[in-house]
Amino acid sequence: MAPTGLWLIGARGSVATTAITGLLALRSGIVPGVGCVSAQQQFRKVPLPEWDEIHVGGHDIVDTPLEKRAELLAESGVIPHRIFEAVRPSLSEVEDNIRPGYHPATHAGTQSDAARTLTDDITAFARRNGLARVVVINVSSTEPVFPALPEHGSLDTLEAAMAVPGRTVLPPSSVAVYAALRAGCPFVDFTPSTGIRLAALQELAKKQRLPYAGSDGKTGETLMRSALAPMFTTRALAVRSWTGTNLLGGGDGRTLADAEHASSKLQSKGRGLSTLLGREVTAPLHIDNVPDLGEQKIAWDHVSFEGFLGVRMSLQFTWTGYDSSLAAPLVLDLARFTAAAHAAGHTGPLGSLAFFFKDPMGTDEHRLGEQFANLVSWAETL
Amino acid sequence: MAPTGLWLIGARGSVATTAITGLLALRSGIVPGVGCVSAQQQFRKVPLPEWDEIHVGGHDIVDTPLEKRAELLAESGVIPHRIFEAVRPSLSEVEDNIRPGYHPATHAGTQSDAARTLTDDITAFARRNGLARVVVINVSSTEPVFPALPEHGSLDTLEAAMAVPGRTVLPPSSVAVYAALRAGCPFVDFTPSTGIRLAALQELAKKQRLPYAGSDGKTGETLMRSALAPMFTTRALAVRSWTGTNLLGGGDGRTLADAEHASSKLQSKGRGLSTLLGREVTAPLHIDNVPDLGEQKIAWDHVSFEGFLGVRMSLQFTWTGYDSSLAAPLVLDLARFTAAAHAAGHTGPLGSLAFFFKDPMGTDEHRLGEQFANLVSWAETL
Amino acid sequence: MAPTGLWLIGARGSVATTAITGLLALRSGIVPGVGCVSAQQQFRKVPLPEWDEIHVGGHDIVDTPLEKRAELLAESGVIPHRIFEAVRPSLSEVEDNIRPGYHPATHAGTQSDAARTLTDDITAFARRNGLARVVVINVSSTEPVFPALPEHGSLDTLEAAMAVPGRTVLPPSSVAVYAALRAGCPFVDFTPSTGIRLAALQELAKKQRLPYAGSDGKTGETLMRSALAPMFTTRALAVRSWTGTNLLGGGDGRTLADAEHASSKLQSKGRGLSTLLGREVTAPLHIDNVPDLGEQKIAWDHVSFEGFLGVRMSLQFTWTGYDSSLAAPLVLDLARFTAAAHAAGHTGPLGSLAFFFKDPMGTDEHRLGEQFANLVSWAETL
Amino acid sequence: MAPTGLWLIGARGSVATTAITGLLALRSGIVPGVGCVSAQQQFRKVPLPEWDEIHVGGHDIVDTPLEKRAELLAESGVIPHRIFEAVRPSLSEVEDNIRPGYHPATHAGTQSDAARTLTDDITAFARRNGLARVVVINVSSTEPVFPALPEHGSLDTLEAAMAVPGRTVLPPSSVAVYAALRAGCPFVDFTPSTGIRLAALQELAKKQRLPYAGSDGKTGETLMRSALAPMFTTRALAVRSWTGTNLLGGGDGRTLADAEHASSKLQSKGRGLSTLLGREVTAPLHIDNVPDLGEQKIAWDHVSFEGFLGVRMSLQFTWTGYDSSLAAPLVLDLARFTAAAHAAGHTGPLGSLAFFFKDPMGTDEHRLGEQFANLVSWAETL
Repeated sequence: MAPTGLWLIGARGSVATTAITGLLALRSGIVPGVGCVSAQQQFRKVPLPEWDEIHVGGHDIVDTPLEKRAELLAESGVIPHRIFEAVRPSLSEVEDNIRPGYHPATHAGTQSDAARTLTDDITAFARRNGLARVVVINVSSTEPVFPALPEHGSLDTLEAAMAVPGRTVLPPSSVAVYAALRAGCPFVDFTPSTGIRLAALQELAKKQRLPYAGSDGKTGETLMRSALAPMFTTRALAVRSWTGTNLLGGGDGRTLADAEHASSKLQSKGRGLSTLLGREVTAPLHIDNVPDLGEQKIAWDHVSFEGFLGVRMSLQFTWTGYDSSLAAPLVLDLARFTAAAHAAGHTGPLGSLAFFFKDPMGTDEHRLGEQFANLVSWAETL
Repeated sequence: MAPTGLWLIGARGSVATTAITGLLALRSGIVPGVGCVSAQQQFRKVPLPEWDEIHVGGHDIVDTPLEKRAELLAESGVIPHRIFEAVRPSLSEVEDNIRPGYHPATHAGTQSDAARTLTDDITAFARRNGLARVVVINVSSTEPVFPALPEHGSLDTLEAAMAVPGRTVLPPSSVAVYAALRAGCPFVDFTPSTGIRLAALQELAKKQRLPYAGSDGKTGETLMRSALAPMFTTRALAVRSWTGTNLLGGGDGRTLADAEHASSKLQSKGRGLSTLLGREVTAPLHIDNVPDLGEQKIAWDHVSFEGFLGVRMSLQFTWTGYDSSLAAPLVLDLARFTAAAHAAGHTGPLGSLAFFFKDPMGTDEHRLGEQFANLVSWAETL
Repeated sequence: MAPTGLWLIGARGSVATTAITGLLALRSGIVPGVGCVSAQQQFRKVPLPEWDEIHVGGHDIVDTPLEKRAELLAESGVIPHRIFEAVRPSLSEVEDNIRPGYHPATHAGTQSDAARTLTDDITAFARRNGLARVVVINVSSTEPVFPALPEHGSLDTLEAAMAVPGRTVLPPSSVAVYAALRAGCPFVDFTPSTGIRLAALQELAKKQRLPYAGSDGKTGETLMRSALAPMFTTRALAVRSWTGTNLLGGGDGRTLADAEHASSKLQSKGRGLSTLLGREVTAPLHIDNVPDLGEQKIAWDHVSFEGFLGVRMSLQFTWTGYDSSLAAPLVLDLARFTAAAHAAGHTGPLGSLAFFFKDPMGTDEHRLGEQFANLVSWAETL
Repeated sequence: MAPTGLWLIGARGSVATTAITGLLALRSGIVPGVGCVSAQQQFRKVPLPEWDEIHVGGHDIVDTPLEKRAELLAESGVIPHRIFEAVRPSLSEVEDNIRPGYHPATHAGTQSDAARTLTDDITAFARRNGLARVVVINVSSTEPVFPALPEHGSLDTLEAAMAVPGRTVLPPSSVAVYAALRAGCPFVDFTPSTGIRLAALQELAKKQRLPYAGSDGKTGETLMRSALAPMFTTRALAVRSWTGTNLLGGGDGRTLADAEHASSKLQSKGRGLSTLLGREVTAPLHIDNVPDLGEQKIAWDHVSFEGFLGVRMSLQFTWTGYDSSLAAPLVLDLARFTAAAHAAGHTGPLGSLAFFFKDPMGTDEHRLGEQFANLVSWAETL
């Protein structure tokens, strides 16, 4: 395929750093594509950009160098030391493509101005590297819930409000989407933040004839749920309650222990379960900040279900993973599939990418098996 | 559908007693069809025998009355007291249809003679109740592995050997199959015993133009594995080891803790895992007899897997269920689907029933989601 | 020992009903003393009231008959059917000793009046049954936290406030304590409610020369913690975080899922952990209401700890119990030990009973092993 | 205290390498004494050798350099990279003190000759380093069970048999003990191998007036059991079954998956449980070799117990640790306490060190809390 850009919002975060390090390692052939869905047999014939055809850049509001971030991830077990050492020199090349991100607290001008700068960064990146297209993916921290405003209803009213000095009509994630679409880029939302979920922005995507996908990468507890819930339903076993406790360290733990930030994440997790089970069940869900776990993420789920003659039984599982290790390869997969979709002229929400998301746009299918089957058959049409 | 027989080998065992009690309860409308796959929306239009069109009989080598067995299951939590009380009077009707089963240790004549008696029992049951067909299902205890013999190779040599006084050329499960096929009955193997897995018996099934299905009902740990393994493979996560420990009380625990009996069960479980994962992994598996658990069955599995950049992660689950509660509704489902398949003229192994089995015959598909999809589309053709 | 009364606040609740049923069963010799600490070898020679020397009565604000409550507990697995049937006739005798409890919402007069009525109930019960003493134990639902008031500081100011019409200076648990002490009864708090933890009431206990004990029965997660935490500390393993999730059904689940009611319970659990570990650790703790669990209580704890050279390791456990089954025998134990302490002339907080409590009064010892050793040597002095 | 030797049998194994690395790190002050029992407050005043007063040497039958072994342990997460780098230079000093161990397969002469060489190695080490005493600790791989022989009954018959060319009257662990005692050294058995558990060798220890301790370091599942079992017994809860599954990678996994080697380990674990619970319970126990776990060790235990009125409840736990990280500091503790005991003139089995062992010699106390209390009071007498 033609040279393809991958522009990461939150380019210095754990997920982005792991994805970048991994891409460099895959490119140099020192690791196999474990965890990369798109590297599997089933997708051999799909016209996806190869690892060495993907160029990475991005925005971030912090300025810790990528190399430092990668080193910390090596210490916490996400990136093996030998891989870090091998790709360390190449990290600085990516570093050159990272630009300051937008945050209302530090930006003086209008949101229009802010968006224009972001758009220009992406356009310059594409031009500089001779890219056929750039896929923009949001992997930054989950935002607090942003209130719905009337101006979100149409592109005209939104743009008018963005031009008003001092107004913050959009959360940062949506400013990033606006900028990406204006730059003619497909957009993928790996977070539960507002992002493209506003009528005005979907209007812009339509006008620009761009595809988009999201939202909220499915990497642990919800992945398990989407694999297990169909077992209960197809066996006609009646789930009565499904409890979840998530222990997170690192920045994600800090962000999500804050009730306001967590609320979008919890909603995004909850929606899936009731769809999967076909009705509401008792489903308390917690996210705890446990700093000493570092990059690890531990989820305990307890499922109480009823079988033949009303007998009560239970299932419980503990999932122990590294969030960034689980998310990073999916980010690369999404870049590849979305680039191919754009090349093939797809526009609007890519429901066929539901396999990757907790809260898929463009479809109501949450069952993992069906999502994969859909992905495979859709990919064959590319 | 026409009146249909369900003939249970091991008719006084826990699974059979629960299935019989449940059928009586379903027939009188005092319980919903929780746990019954065939009672779901998707199969509404399939011509299956209704609950009140199914008549039950069977063979067993023990003679504890059904009512006594059901009472014990009520005490151990498998059958709610109120349901036991409600169906108690009807149990004696089924009781009248249970005949002494065959066991080499207690039978004096040839295996031909033994089979003939069994056949006659089934035929008389069908005639007495005016049944269009009888589905024979083996739900008796798992047998020790029976040695392969040259006589198993063809129907002629098998029948010659069965007629030799004093020869035990077949294990009881296969004598039961022979008798069922001779009676013109479709056969379902819910156990991992030898049963129909001999060339001579499959030749007989073919000659009689009968369908058959098996083997080894998938009710707990293996059910979980067939739901979870595809999650790992479709996500390109490399499973490195998958350990299992099963704690069983009751008769099943006693039987399977005996290494010889367990060996067929362990093989049947193991075959599935490597097929599901596409390669061999370290997979130690234990079955422990823990009498104080009664009818409960507890399985703990630990899965160690590798993700992006070789990082190690893990999943563990504990499944706590009542084996008979999980198995019984599937026995009813299998009776219904197999009867419909027979009515529709199907012959040979019913690979489309793989959804119900640990070690399916007639297909190599072990993935639960695909098995269900196959079942649904096959059922639509009936 | 002399005839002894056990007066239960919340006498129709699950814990009380199970304790009463169990006492009747123990008295008639149809069950062994499993779960009864005081029935062990170590306490053979301690002068405790025998099962048939204990007479039960109590207060409750609901009026569901004990027999009905016991029947429900039989259905939910806490009381075996055969035991319920055996003691059913005797339940009505206890029924006659249950009087209406106090609740501000339904009581018109002053709190002084209310307390007087309660006192009279207890006194009449003692006289009617010729009891040497009555131990009053609070096993009612956990109250919302009650604000600290200046009137709680001394008996005089408290009694003055209690006499003011329309004033609610005490929560119901403390009114019950006041009444018990006025009736000359030792008091045990099996809940985390305010109860005797007010200076004014402890002053009254002192004046009346009565012993008291509490608080908050240690029956599950906290029991485990008090057994396990010393393992980490004596082995010099540094616990970094200890997370807990509690799933409760039944009335307890409903009460404690309400944040206000839960707060006293969570505080009571938290105090112990930091004392046990010798410092504060990250310790998020949740109580979820999961009605379908019925009387079951499931606790999942995850402990992350650091060993030699800073290596991180973990322990997780799942405790699945019936709260009332665990609590009820301890209520009987507390009645026996407290009666013996009263007979022996002990007054003030009985720190030696810490073994039974999450948040012991009269001592700071939370280690289970030490608590038991203390109990044994104290009992020898009785 | 005076300069003290620590002589490790199996000096290049994972436990020894971690202990040596840790000792060097402690000596240089770059790590705190986490996991070191003897470094705690309670033992401040006990005359124990300081970290820089302990000199290490040992025997091993393999010759991989210590530095290489430490590097592998750093890669597998047992030794942090920064600590490995810091102590790397000092490892070679210890290296100089490691001599070839004894193994019958590679040794030509009599066992007397073999033992003499071993004794000489230890004596030379002590002389070379001016040591007041040398504590010999066996941390080598678990041996297969060695048959009991009549010659083990007395020192005379044993020594006669050892002098017979071609006879293997002792397993290597016992040859090592013989050599240590002949060198006048106290001996500690950290493994379940035969070691000092022969009458002839205990006779020699007595003759030499030496103390000894063992056996089989308590580091994971058994540690948990000795903390938890007293909870059940003191609460009068009746344990009905206690199942254990152990997953081990590394060399230990390989050795113990071999049924013959495992048998001594399984016996050693089993003895404790029935002593702790005061009677035999159903207690199936498995050790599985799961190579991909590397140095990790995972134990899952399921405890089924009965409470008040016969109600069944359960506890399950999963322990995830690094075996060498848990064992290594205990090896250092044992060196210190045993040296102090020797200095204080103690002889015979040191039952007060039971806290460290699965199968303690010199006492029948298996309860962790009591073992610690005994250790503390004994240490105060040193």
